[in-house]
Amino acid sequence: MSINLSTALKLIDAARKKAEEIGVPMVIAVVDDGGNLVAQVRMDDALLVSVDIARNKAYTAAAVKVATHELGSVSQPNQPLFGIHVADGCRIVIFGGGFPLKKKDKVIGGIGVSGGSVEQDMECAQAALERL
Amino acid sequence: MSINLSTALKLIDAARKKAEEIGVPMVIAVVDDGGNLVAQVRMDDALLVSVDIARNKAYTAAAVKVATHELGSVSQPNQPLFGIHVADGCRIVIFGGGFPLKKKDKVIGGIGVSGGSVEQDMECAQAALERL
Amino acid sequence: MSINLSTALKLIDAARKKAEEIGVPMVIAVVDDGGNLVAQVRMDDALLVSVDIARNKAYTAAAVKVATHELGSVSQPNQPLFGIHVADGCRIVIFGGGFPLKKKDKVIGGIGVSGGSVEQDMECAQAALERL
Amino acid sequence: MSINLSTALKLIDAARKKAEEIGVPMVIAVVDDGGNLVAQVRMDDALLVSVDIARNKAYTAAAVKVATHELGSVSQPNQPLFGIHVADGCRIVIFGGGFPLKKKDKVIGGIGVSGGSVEQDMECAQAALERL
Repeated sequence: MSINLSTALKLIDAARKKAEEIGVPMVIAVVDDGGNLVAQVRMDDALLVSVDIARNKAYTAAAVKVATHELGSVSQPNQPLFGIHVADGCRIVIFGGGFPLKKKDKVIGGIGVSGGSVEQDMECAQAALERL
Repeated sequence: MSINLSTALKLIDAARKKAEEIGVPMVIAVVDDGGNLVAQVRMDDALLVSVDIARNKAYTAAAVKVATHELGSVSQPNQPLFGIHVADGCRIVIFGGGFPLKKKDKVIGGIGVSGGSVEQDMECAQAALERL
Repeated sequence: MSINLSTALKLIDAARKKAEEIGVPMVIAVVDDGGNLVAQVRMDDALLVSVDIARNKAYTAAAVKVATHELGSVSQPNQPLFGIHVADGCRIVIFGGGFPLKKKDKVIGGIGVSGGSVEQDMECAQAALERL
Repeated sequence: MSINLSTALKLIDAARKKAEEIGVPMVIAVVDDGGNLVAQVRMDDALLVSVDIARNKAYTAAAVKVATHELGSVSQPNQPLFGIHVADGCRIVIFGGGFPLKKKDKVIGGIGVSGGSVEQDMECAQAALERL
């Protein structure tokens, strides 16, 4: 079971509306349960670095099955998973803005948002999750 | 001058409609004049390999400022640019489906389509160009 | 729908038996429908290069949804897809030994075999397909 | 002297049984004394990220000749090897779950397990070591 394009675009739309509301241009990406990109948009003037980070936040959430901010707390120095940020081709993001997408407790993909502060990124991603 | 998200989504929509019309699921990507991704969608069941190829066709078209099928003809063995397919981190695609996006003779980005035969990919990309 | 470990190991076992029968040590890999590794074995004394090639043959077959020898015929110089061998992070293999795994016409993964001649690799992979 | 496939599969089987016993799907990988993959299995529903991490834990253990959790303790900030996690193409894992495989004090390979907590990963890897 994996997320389809139609649902992915609805989630992206929800995150984008929230980003417009708070006035911060974002990049929003959705991957499927295999970690492969389904859809991505970059709002005008969004940070260039966010093109990569948004996608990798989505990838991380699907690949690790937890939100990226939760992964971050156990990946700091002297914590159990310190070093995981360079695993898997350096695609693992350990700060907030990535969330697994679930249906009946099964991970069907991941969403990643990047462009503002971590809190803003998370707020936009959560707006998408509410649409799911 | 670079393509904005609104226009990119219109182009993707046009290519997608054509893909639905011919019954072949495609991946469609648009990059800006810096070669960076603006938007990408993967239609359900589109080939996995197309996630990467569509994006790189768009990149190639913006980076080389010619359509990828035109680049292909000069990149065969014994032709002037043989070997360019491994340039630029292997992001250069030398078969059809990528087109530069122009406004008043200035390249403002690129579009790439992948998922069918080269002819089908080109047909869908051209449907997008007509919308521009 | 994706291949599970139990089936993957049966396929690998069938390919391995064929490899033992013809006396050529092989590497055999199976990926799921998202192109991610499910299982891989390297028979003793198999070529070191085959560790990578077997996996990428399996990846290619799942990602392009055709057998790698079929992809090869259209990827030669002056053919429609020349250059595809460096796409997708140079993971695309364009010689025989990779086959998509299908269930009711849906691709559920891919198998790749490497270690002998292309014909030997294909023979071992086909022994696995018969077990499917 | 290097581990052979037959032994590698026995070790993987032992780790897998322990993983089933504790109810956590794991990826288990064994590499030879050259750091090259001998065998790998991904149990159904194991984390996608573990495909890469299990292999790299096995690689790290063989390449550094210590268990990955021991390497981790000297690789934290302000410790002697801080930074080693990005060495060797970012293949060095500095948290538990990877162990060198030894025969008469000679390293003949490495095993890596990923999919659960660090403690669970180590428990499954140790079950394999007992089989050696």
